[in-house]
Amino acid sequence: ILPAVCFVWQVAMIILFGVFVRYDKEADAHWSETKKEENITSNVENDFYYRYPSFQDVHVMIFVGFGFLMTFLKRYSFGGVGFNFLIAAFGLQWALLMQGWFHSLDPVTGYIYIGIENLINADFCVAGCLIAFGALLGKVSPVQLMVMTLFGVTLYAVEEYIILNLLHAIDAGGSMVIHIFGAYYGLTISWVLYRPNLHQSKRLHGSVYHSDVFAMIGTLFLWMYWPSFNSAICYHGDGQHRAAINTYLSLAASVLTTFAISSLSAKRGKLDMVHIQNATLAGGVAMGTAAEFMIQPYGALIVGFCCGIVSTFGYLVLTPFMEKCLKIQDTCGIHNLHAMPGVLGGVVGAITAATASNAVYSPEGLINTFDFQGAYQAAAMCVALIFGIGGGALVGLILRFPIWGDAEDDNCFDDEVYWEVSGAEFCCCPRCPLGVTVR
Amino acid sequence: ILPAVCFVWQVAMIILFGVFVRYDKEADAHWSETKKEENITSNVENDFYYRYPSFQDVHVMIFVGFGFLMTFLKRYSFGGVGFNFLIAAFGLQWALLMQGWFHSLDPVTGYIYIGIENLINADFCVAGCLIAFGALLGKVSPVQLMVMTLFGVTLYAVEEYIILNLLHAIDAGGSMVIHIFGAYYGLTISWVLYRPNLHQSKRLHGSVYHSDVFAMIGTLFLWMYWPSFNSAICYHGDGQHRAAINTYLSLAASVLTTFAISSLSAKRGKLDMVHIQNATLAGGVAMGTAAEFMIQPYGALIVGFCCGIVSTFGYLVLTPFMEKCLKIQDTCGIHNLHAMPGVLGGVVGAITAATASNAVYSPEGLINTFDFQGAYQAAAMCVALIFGIGGGALVGLILRFPIWGDAEDDNCFDDEVYWEVSGAEFCCCPRCPLGVTVR
Amino acid sequence: ILPAVCFVWQVAMIILFGVFVRYDKEADAHWSETKKEENITSNVENDFYYRYPSFQDVHVMIFVGFGFLMTFLKRYSFGGVGFNFLIAAFGLQWALLMQGWFHSLDPVTGYIYIGIENLINADFCVAGCLIAFGALLGKVSPVQLMVMTLFGVTLYAVEEYIILNLLHAIDAGGSMVIHIFGAYYGLTISWVLYRPNLHQSKRLHGSVYHSDVFAMIGTLFLWMYWPSFNSAICYHGDGQHRAAINTYLSLAASVLTTFAISSLSAKRGKLDMVHIQNATLAGGVAMGTAAEFMIQPYGALIVGFCCGIVSTFGYLVLTPFMEKCLKIQDTCGIHNLHAMPGVLGGVVGAITAATASNAVYSPEGLINTFDFQGAYQAAAMCVALIFGIGGGALVGLILRFPIWGDAEDDNCFDDEVYWEVSGAEFCCCPRCPLGVTVR
Repeated sequence: ILPAVCFVWQVAMIILFGVFVRYDKEADAHWSETKKEENITSNVENDFYYRYPSFQDVHVMIFVGFGFLMTFLKRYSFGGVGFNFLIAAFGLQWALLMQGWFHSLDPVTGYIYIGIENLINADFCVAGCLIAFGALLGKVSPVQLMVMTLFGVTLYAVEEYIILNLLHAIDAGGSMVIHIFGAYYGLTISWVLYRPNLHQSKRLHGSVYHSDVFAMIGTLFLWMYWPSFNSAICYHGDGQHRAAINTYLSLAASVLTTFAISSLSAKRGKLDMVHIQNATLAGGVAMGTAAEFMIQPYGALIVGFCCGIVSTFGYLVLTPFMEKCLKIQDTCGIHNLHAMPGVLGGVVGAITAATASNAVYSPEGLINTFDFQGAYQAAAMCVALIFGIGGGALVGLILRFPIWGDAEDDNCFDDEVYWEVSGAEFCCCPRCPLGVTVR
Repeated sequence: ILPAVCFVWQVAMIILFGVFVRYDKEADAHWSETKKEENITSNVENDFYYRYPSFQDVHVMIFVGFGFLMTFLKRYSFGGVGFNFLIAAFGLQWALLMQGWFHSLDPVTGYIYIGIENLINADFCVAGCLIAFGALLGKVSPVQLMVMTLFGVTLYAVEEYIILNLLHAIDAGGSMVIHIFGAYYGLTISWVLYRPNLHQSKRLHGSVYHSDVFAMIGTLFLWMYWPSFNSAICYHGDGQHRAAINTYLSLAASVLTTFAISSLSAKRGKLDMVHIQNATLAGGVAMGTAAEFMIQPYGALIVGFCCGIVSTFGYLVLTPFMEKCLKIQDTCGIHNLHAMPGVLGGVVGAITAATASNAVYSPEGLINTFDFQGAYQAAAMCVALIFGIGGGALVGLILRFPIWGDAEDDNCFDDEVYWEVSGAEFCCCPRCPLGVTVR
Repeated sequence: ILPAVCFVWQVAMIILFGVFVRYDKEADAHWSETKKEENITSNVENDFYYRYPSFQDVHVMIFVGFGFLMTFLKRYSFGGVGFNFLIAAFGLQWALLMQGWFHSLDPVTGYIYIGIENLINADFCVAGCLIAFGALLGKVSPVQLMVMTLFGVTLYAVEEYIILNLLHAIDAGGSMVIHIFGAYYGLTISWVLYRPNLHQSKRLHGSVYHSDVFAMIGTLFLWMYWPSFNSAICYHGDGQHRAAINTYLSLAASVLTTFAISSLSAKRGKLDMVHIQNATLAGGVAMGTAAEFMIQPYGALIVGFCCGIVSTFGYLVLTPFMEKCLKIQDTCGIHNLHAMPGVLGGVVGAITAATASNAVYSPEGLINTFDFQGAYQAAAMCVALIFGIGGGALVGLILRFPIWGDAEDDNCFDDEVYWEVSGAEFCCCPRCPLGVTVR
């Protein structure tokens, strides 16, 4: 079924792109001529040069960041990085269309005009679906992931339109639009697809030494490039600069509190790689909404400080609680890394927006960034939540149909189900360094 | 012999650079003064700021992209990433000289003036040789690789001069200049160096779990940064922007068709890591020539769609066929990833160029990009082929001299021949996770 | 004790940032308005767009470059990349404050104004401490590393102020300020903390196959982005362009001589991964001071040529000698990679500066880059040495107090002391591929 889905959907993409999508003016060969007539010769006018480096940083986060973060399982590294690759490559195309229909459709010509900003926004949209993938990692088939992405991108585009264009909320780095939506979308799907016998795959539900090091590649590229993520579509100039600084500081603070809580919680003060790989990133999530606000450097540090604590406690307390009592199996702990810090970020944004004054922002800056109030920010958060949970419930039900070829309960977290993995590579040693019992 | 080659050639580089190479005006301290006199004060005039981020992306592709893509063998990861490092570092210097003689030599002063564009072009030139390395991986000594690179860079510089300066063909991302040349150069060398008893190294001719994950690092950095590769030396403005969009879309489409064919071909629909690591990149190769053309987004998707199919079928059918019937041993399958998509890219470029009209391109754009015809593009493809096959035959004969210290047939794909690898690290378990029989 | 240190210091950071740190004008919302009044509308005036890509490259070097370079030990990869993460995230915040007090403090308002240049300089400052970490890797506790970083950043800020602001020396890439200081700081601490019984951890003091491949990730990202490091805070325009070219060429040359010496020195010409991982980078260290000088391309090649030789010989001869005779245990060989090439770089800078003439530099260029003489450069080198050795002795004594929870002599280089590592993952095979004897 996977080949059919890939083929048919890619053909559909080609047809839809043929009908609807054209280069935007900055990418069109006619533009140079227009510029010449208007007597503008400088390259500076072209947005491309300001956006492209940030775009590439975000792109690295999507494919290497998310991809390698999900290689931490001892025998699901192929699936983590490989399916991430598949659904991101599909999601990007679909996002260009869906977001284009809402944002870049020219009512006269009927075309969607795409340029560098559309590419960045498509990466953002896909990020929401990859977050949801984190909750489902190892438990669903690639076809289910494709379906999840198809609906996820669609829901995202609608939700984004409501939040940014109707409510005029600010969410440059997507604490609400991306993280709250993505996390609750994934968690709700996981809740609908609850597997009571997942413990049968317990032997594979963990990391080995080198898979944890691979996951650190993902963590670090996410951590380093997060300032680009939160500033990529900010207004040029001081707003973008400020977003980068705020995110940078917030991330730095959450590293220290993550190490602190991780060490505090364990017997003999030992650190846990799961916390270091994930909770250190919470500061970036929580700065998504308020990234370009004048919250001052210490404000950013406070946000990161709190997030590191909240997120690490989530891994210690909430994930086991949710699995046991709420029947939500959250493989990567996205509730701790995306849902809670995302809500925190939304709240910070709403409060900051509500208390913003002309004294802090210049009149001009205010016009650029503040045609909204704190209440709209709060409303935006609710919209993201509703779309996440509602959409997740719907898509979860669709994914429960027994036609998608998902793995058995005792085959979860195992690459052998979907990938060619030479069996002879398994060690016969009962305490094998790969941690895998021989069949 | 390796130390002698490295030393002597590096000394030769120093002497040749001393005689011939100087900074170009944008990198020369006198330039600021000239600008001052001309009353130009803006940094915008300096190409450096527009080219440098793309240059670094390409640089990452050369060293991390190609390097890690070639770590997939279970016991040749050191050689893959290490020899890639060696020949790229040598090739860059030699390419600055050889390309400089053809493109940047000032006939008055007799100097080659180098700047950021020369660095990008040197990376492109080296890419051709690293592609050839892919066919030879594990079967030749580092000295042979150095010789291969010496001749490869020289041939490339001549071929590039003929194609770009004499035929005035367009090939911004090098489908022909880089990929066709590099692939046929490597394949012909591999054909001349055919090892009938290579099966004696069969135990090492494959991957283990973690070496496949390492290779994915290479795949993803190549995949993500390919839009920078194909747009790095385009005209500023809309051309560069368009090249990035086209490449991005083509790559996305080839991911889906690669997954489709890989799953379709295997028993029980299992995916093969070799396909995912390689064929997903074919869309970038094929967009090399037509990158900046107005082929529209759906055109780029179609190219990627076809390439993913062709390339994956290559791995399934052609590579075994070529090894058995044509006596060409192609370790990394460069025929599937570079040769076929390169030819496809050249054909697409020729057709698009032949059918280009003033209606699509503005008059000004036409002057910039179209002082040629489809026929010249086709001729350029032939030149690349001839240089690849002819040069490869010549260099292959040179490399057959029994003086280069290449490995025995039963020692191929083994790092122990050229690297210190502690023997005690081999497992005694008969089904060792590293897949290596103990000696 | 680690949780307490992390918490208290992070709280202190928040308070100090609250009292002292504000956005600089380019990151402040009021700036747009000011610009409007001054009738400047172009983004070009904003430094952010020229510095940000270089900043991100440097950032990758700090976290992925240094972090993964230190994963080479078979059972200290978590500590290498994890503690690097911790002390860099702390060091950045502290560096913004310390460097800010010296460089960006506004005497009128009493505020430190931070922008993109401060972030780059903070990365530079942290690099000095991470170099010192290289000498101590595996032998000290995370709390000791935090203390080492606290003092290291402080000393660095003072030393940098003396060298750059009082002596007016040039050191764009920090051969002296970063590398000489960092290396001697670390070596002196290591000397004070000498462990006579370190041989008890000998079983863990080495690499395994895949940990060497992980380390190559660090090597390559350092190598590729070093041109950005040395040019990140150069004057815009030709100086920055030249610094990138010089560093690039120097690095390329040191790759070839490293391979030459590594192969020459071993029995049967085998290459050693330790040399390839480290000595190939020496060319970048040595171009730190003279990066933007008009030393011409061949001059850069000569510097890299010499550094590769010196650094590789260091690994072969000096590191064993220093451990045996001078009681300095240098885990990563920072003496070979940072100290010696740093001194070489300082000497090259002093000589070039002393012999610089108006004929080579334009008058204007001279004003920008040469309000100093060779003697000041030499003095700067001495200052860096004195701060490194003096500061290292002081901090070493502090770190000898038996309150810091460092590992026993037979537990060094072992992640199990500070990290949760599932014991069942150790192989029972006596020649385990992970090279670890079962407990």
